[in-house]
Amino acid sequence: MVILHSAPGTCALASHIALEDAGADYTVVRVDFRTGEQRGDAYLAINPKGRVPALVTEHGTLTETPAILAYIAQHFPEAGLAPLHDPFAFARVQEFNLYLCSTLHIAHAHRMRGHRWADDDATIAGMKRFAPRAVAQCWDLIEATMIQGPWVIGQTNSICDAYLFALTQWIEGDTVDQSRIPKVMAHRRLMTERPAVRRVMAALG
Amino acid sequence: MVILHSAPGTCALASHIALEDAGADYTVVRVDFRTGEQRGDAYLAINPKGRVPALVTEHGTLTETPAILAYIAQHFPEAGLAPLHDPFAFARVQEFNLYLCSTLHIAHAHRMRGHRWADDDATIAGMKRFAPRAVAQCWDLIEATMIQGPWVIGQTNSICDAYLFALTQWIEGDTVDQSRIPKVMAHRRLMTERPAVRRVMAALG
Repeated sequence: MVILHSAPGTCALASHIALEDAGADYTVVRVDFRTGEQRGDAYLAINPKGRVPALVTEHGTLTETPAILAYIAQHFPEAGLAPLHDPFAFARVQEFNLYLCSTLHIAHAHRMRGHRWADDDATIAGMKRFAPRAVAQCWDLIEATMIQGPWVIGQTNSICDAYLFALTQWIEGDTVDQSRIPKVMAHRRLMTERPAVRRVMAALG
Repeated sequence: MVILHSAPGTCALASHIALEDAGADYTVVRVDFRTGEQRGDAYLAINPKGRVPALVTEHGTLTETPAILAYIAQHFPEAGLAPLHDPFAFARVQEFNLYLCSTLHIAHAHRMRGHRWADDDATIAGMKRFAPRAVAQCWDLIEATMIQGPWVIGQTNSICDAYLFALTQWIEGDTVDQSRIPKVMAHRRLMTERPAVRRVMAALG
């Protein structure tokens, strides 16, 4: 049994879907961002970074989405969520997840969480203003170079698909022009039809 | 034979050290950031992201430092650069590398590369002003929670150490108070004494 600490609208959705895909025995605990629970002592004792996701396992607590996703793939090898026996193919999976984590997610965060990188209102407003352009550049590159189709790595659903789907939830909020990214939007539709994804989305309510 | 595309003063140093640690057959090609070579057509054909590092292998080109580091560890298992047969321990290694990549490196980049997240001078100046505080927060968390000692994961040198050492090169430029992070500074000294690191630093000139 593992416990996923999650919050609605965050990238923790990726780990949630991967756990469901893996057939893991898990439970989800919701962290209430509206009350700042993620910065409270109780949650900081779980994850000193004050972020979600955090995955509490029998061995200890893991954070950072790409690390959690690779862990789920390796811990449940029978689920086939990553090419575990081919270092190069596995690196490709990780490279994709890393781009989502360190470029797309970061670009998006400048719209909502500018206080991470500035403390004056003008700078935070400047970041927020530019964020849709930075996010759009990321989606253009993903569309042009990163989706083999129908799944990210080709014929097999993997941890990349869970992560991509999670971040596509932000497309409307980031005012991305969907007509520029048909592969991405087709991927989102395909994911929405998967039973595992339906179960997760239903559980989120 | 693999080719590492690198540039002085960047996080590509981490991959360079890991290749040396692994005993890999490699060569380093320097990308000239002063002339904007990373945004030229020739380099974009190698890495459409216009960044370093990029590792050209017989199977294709890999980007994103944590993905490259995990690849090196998995491709050269005899080098013992990561706990490859323990998914949780491997995830811990990745979690550490992910924090450097998506939090510390990003905080640092707001001092030097604000144009990624804004296009007006005032916002870029605001980011630059705040960057040392964001970077210092990262180093405080690393110091307090992430270094087992003497190496990052304890008694064994791993890909975490190469990455940490690479990013400690920015401490002076980011005006970090070194007295707050004795473990980090001890780790940097320890790394500087390693023959593999000496060879890499000598090659960089």
